Amino acid sequence: MHPLDTATALEPLPDGTFRGHTSPAYANLVGPFGGVTAACLLNAAWLHPARLGEPVALTVNFAAAPADGEFTVSARPARTNRSTQHWLIELRQSGEVMTTASAVFAVRRETWSMPEAGPPEVPAADTLARSSLVRRPPWAHHYDMRFVMGGMPEAFDAQLQPDSVTRVWVRDEPPRPLDFISLSALCDSFFPRVFLRRRKFAPIGTVSLTTYFHADAALLRAQGEQPVLGTARALNFRNGYFDQSAEVWGAGRQLLASSHQVVYYRD
Amino acid sequence: MHPLDTATALEPLPDGTFRGHTSPAYANLVGPFGGVTAACLLNAAWLHPARLGEPVALTVNFAAAPADGEFTVSARPARTNRSTQHWLIELRQSGEVMTTASAVFAVRRETWSMPEAGPPEVPAADTLARSSLVRRPPWAHHYDMRFVMGGMPEAFDAQLQPDSVTRVWVRDEPPRPLDFISLSALCDSFFPRVFLRRRKFAPIGTVSLTTYFHADAALLRAQGEQPVLGTARALNFRNGYFDQSAEVWGAGRQLLASSHQVVYYRD
Repeated sequence: MHPLDTATALEPLPDGTFRGHTSPAYANLVGPFGGVTAACLLNAAWLHPARLGEPVALTVNFAAAPADGEFTVSARPARTNRSTQHWLIELRQSGEVMTTASAVFAVRRETWSMPEAGPPEVPAADTLARSSLVRRPPWAHHYDMRFVMGGMPEAFDAQLQPDSVTRVWVRDEPPRPLDFISLSALCDSFFPRVFLRRRKFAPIGTVSLTTYFHADAALLRAQGEQPVLGTARALNFRNGYFDQSAEVWGAGRQLLASSHQVVYYRD
Repeated sequence: MHPLDTATALEPLPDGTFRGHTSPAYANLVGPFGGVTAACLLNAAWLHPARLGEPVALTVNFAAAPADGEFTVSARPARTNRSTQHWLIELRQSGEVMTTASAVFAVRRETWSMPEAGPPEVPAADTLARSSLVRRPPWAHHYDMRFVMGGMPEAFDAQLQPDSVTRVWVRDEPPRPLDFISLSALCDSFFPRVFLRRRKFAPIGTVSLTTYFHADAALLRAQGEQPVLGTARALNFRNGYFDQSAEVWGAGRQLLASSHQVVYYRD
């Protein structure tokens, strides 16, 4: 079993909720890697017997860092229409809400389709070296990252940088076929923009993460275990919060996901 | 009373929920303008006696178009931390969920702050003509829009355009001092990207809208009734859904909000 599948595994309970367990493989500095928590909440809707279609949008609000150990996840369809379904999802520990999420699922039909943006021109993944894992938290060891630009600074020398742009080839480590679960986790795998911009460490924490899925299950399946190209940047850092927008591009240059988050930082 | 304040007014009910009413002034083709619904849900947390701080993030999921008439809004803090508060909000009619939302509020402190992106260079608002209101839905009459580029196509001639980029000076009409309520509505005031890209009308509906507030109340107050500069674009249109990312820039060139949505469209 892939460590991501272990980390996002949910056991159905008699009351319709699910039981999960944090995974040391995806630990962060404090609590679990947010991407895996997001994937876990998505998985609760995905596994739910009332599910309609596939995810189009997922918003995860990180209210508190879950402690190591068990948690429960409840997912309920707030409304089911003919082709769309709206989910409300909560992760609790000892009865307390640690994470909330909403998701929109949909049955997609073929329509006129057209990209507007394309991926940047970058060297192929296999021409780049895998990023160092020295001083990286456990979760980062479960991604193979090959940076074109904007990797974690080699030194926190407090030299302010002009931007926080990242371009990185990334895949699960060990390799795992791409699906909605792994894609939703991967969308949170970009290092905090404030570390890149300031080359300075600061306590940070994502407070809200939204991912739009532009791909359906068939397009994700076609990616297999190939690396995907991630791009990320910030617009603004102001009084304790910065934003990040990221795109994830597939091997065929398709946009698989676009993802946005707002992150708390301490000075 | 400004029509936006009428449209977002909420009356506290004995059970802790609020009663609101759709407003003909902000009607859309089907149901109310989504921006006003978003503002109404934000207002429920804003007015709640348990509120801590100011909004940082708001996600609104449009599950069904509310019918004209009364609705109730419930807002509950799912978790309150020392400086952040996570809200779950629902709008119901006849007991049925029409709209759900989550919001993160925070007490901001002064920290190192720095923009990364800036607004595009554009002509001043008063050098541009106000956009025509011919064939526009009622809500659009309550915005003064002056397009630098990417206004509503003059004709739906089905000529595919290379992009869907909009730059527009916009303010409430009649003028109203900017605050979180009006800003959250204004973030949804960009015409559907698919209309611009295809120059073709199609039924559309936002399914999920996320707004990040980069400004605090003082910075918004300083904008007064001046127009703000909005920019919007799409990344991808695929099988019934497209995304939109927008930014709203203040008179002092500060980023006031960034906003993202995913929109259903029919072919």
